[in-house]
Amino acid sequence: MSESLAELGESELLRRLARFAPATQFSDDTAALPSDPRPLLVNTDVLVEHVHFSDATTSATDVGWRAVAANLSDLAASGAVSIDGITVALMAPGSTPWSWVEGVYSGLSAALERYGGVLLGGDCSAAQQRSLSITALGRLGDLRLHRGDARPGDVLVTSGVHGLSRLGLAVLQNDPSLAGLTIPDDLRAAAITQHQRPIPRLDALTTLLTSKPNQTPWRAGGTDSSDGLLAAVEGLCASSHCGAVLDQSLLPRPAGWPMGWPWDQWCLQGGEDFELVLSLPAHWADCWLSHQAGSRRLGMITAEANVIRWSDGSPVIKATSFNHYDQP
Amino acid sequence: MSESLAELGESELLRRLARFAPATQFSDDTAALPSDPRPLLVNTDVLVEHVHFSDATTSATDVGWRAVAANLSDLAASGAVSIDGITVALMAPGSTPWSWVEGVYSGLSAALERYGGVLLGGDCSAAQQRSLSITALGRLGDLRLHRGDARPGDVLVTSGVHGLSRLGLAVLQNDPSLAGLTIPDDLRAAAITQHQRPIPRLDALTTLLTSKPNQTPWRAGGTDSSDGLLAAVEGLCASSHCGAVLDQSLLPRPAGWPMGWPWDQWCLQGGEDFELVLSLPAHWADCWLSHQAGSRRLGMITAEANVIRWSDGSPVIKATSFNHYDQP
Repeated sequence: MSESLAELGESELLRRLARFAPATQFSDDTAALPSDPRPLLVNTDVLVEHVHFSDATTSATDVGWRAVAANLSDLAASGAVSIDGITVALMAPGSTPWSWVEGVYSGLSAALERYGGVLLGGDCSAAQQRSLSITALGRLGDLRLHRGDARPGDVLVTSGVHGLSRLGLAVLQNDPSLAGLTIPDDLRAAAITQHQRPIPRLDALTTLLTSKPNQTPWRAGGTDSSDGLLAAVEGLCASSHCGAVLDQSLLPRPAGWPMGWPWDQWCLQGGEDFELVLSLPAHWADCWLSHQAGSRRLGMITAEANVIRWSDGSPVIKATSFNHYDQP
Repeated sequence: MSESLAELGESELLRRLARFAPATQFSDDTAALPSDPRPLLVNTDVLVEHVHFSDATTSATDVGWRAVAANLSDLAASGAVSIDGITVALMAPGSTPWSWVEGVYSGLSAALERYGGVLLGGDCSAAQQRSLSITALGRLGDLRLHRGDARPGDVLVTSGVHGLSRLGLAVLQNDPSLAGLTIPDDLRAAAITQHQRPIPRLDALTTLLTSKPNQTPWRAGGTDSSDGLLAAVEGLCASSHCGAVLDQSLLPRPAGWPMGWPWDQWCLQGGEDFELVLSLPAHWADCWLSHQAGSRRLGMITAEANVIRWSDGSPVIKATSFNHYDQP
């Protein structure tokens, strides 16, 4: 009897599935197809009810919006500058009300209207559980960003603050971990908005391309922080065989964010912030930071493979990897 | 309270979802994206356990093969001449054995090796039920085939016989409808093979493009018979605002296929044969039929919108539309 997916865990499952694809294909979230004048980037993401969303915290319209945002965030983190559109596979029980489906497609459409692209088609089927599988297609700009293209000496930067989405989820769920925490009203409102209506950072990618100094070559490491800021840094380091030094004083905290636990934990590992996390040559980093509102310096890339430290030399804990397959 | 998906049914659901897409986008199973030198065709299809496959009739490897065949069949029926690859969204419970997943990906890989293209990536998630959502990408040849491009006076043709897959399913399920039927051994074997290892007819599309007479313009109506031969003809007629006359003596029966009920019913409505069903100018039809081994003439396209008759004038029954959402 072979092991179950729950026993394997998600990262081992992906490692095994990667053997069925061309080498290094699975080290990025997108694939590039040759096309003139610009290569086409393609990305597929799944959202499953009770795993990625629930009626308690996410309206149908927000499910649609977030699905598009998650896909376009992956495209932006690979270098997409424009979006062609999406195909949608919708699975749902026959008892699902049309109003829920209409809400999802309204959310998809609203996000496509904002960020570009159209609904290209898809498929529908009955299933026991609601889920959406979305494939997004976009066009590459002047640079393909790879997770494996960070280099020692690079500056680690990100397009925005982290932790808001996790806080928003906790607020919407009345999470017991909030007991005793004082949350300013505007922080609470910003957190809910970030959780329900995340923004794919196509704008920050465009600024990245236009801010490159002429003498700097086209090479940058990139990913997004959909699985959390720390997981993004770990992913860059693992794929690039590098390490990183993070400066605790530079943690990308939202405005009004209290200090200490659990706040730093949410900032580092909350997930679903959908910001770009980039590894840039120093001069390019300076130029991007000066042109991209809200962007932040996080630290440096080092040669010490897979070792992530704080600037005082102490080790940064490993990101908690969430194993969906352990869910009941 | 809005209607449920079971109350709407699949065709009304698709009609409503089409409003979220550009006009006519949903009248074909694929979308075309601009790309030089050849536009890119994209198609998404879903397979759900207990709806589209079950362990009783389909091994894991066959699930993977059929998933690719279904997608590539849609691409071929839209005019694809080569395949770039697929993305795969895999949903399955944590209790699913790795050996099942490995079998599915082996089947996907075997079909890609045969018909071209690579595994481009995808996503995985825990879910209550096993399902696959596949997006296939390929390159358009000299002609985009549309369901809406049939014209009165065209000859209706198909790339092969119909009914085998449905018979194969019945045999594998020990279907009670087989009681009292005599099935020759070689027909039984061919039926099981057709059900488990269907062939996307990229070869027949290539012959179509190379067999066009010089003086005939590039215009043909096309679809595939994944939902059954009659449904394919109905789809061509509905999208093209035409009708059809079918010749009962020309029903594309497999070799050794007995006459009468239920055999004709399986031939017309069995589904999953994945043959091309084309509406061609007469001269082009002649050329294609003479160059494409196994291809058949079915009848003619008429101006009588949505009316499908036998050549003796009697009406052909409407295709039974299967409503997945009525399933328990």
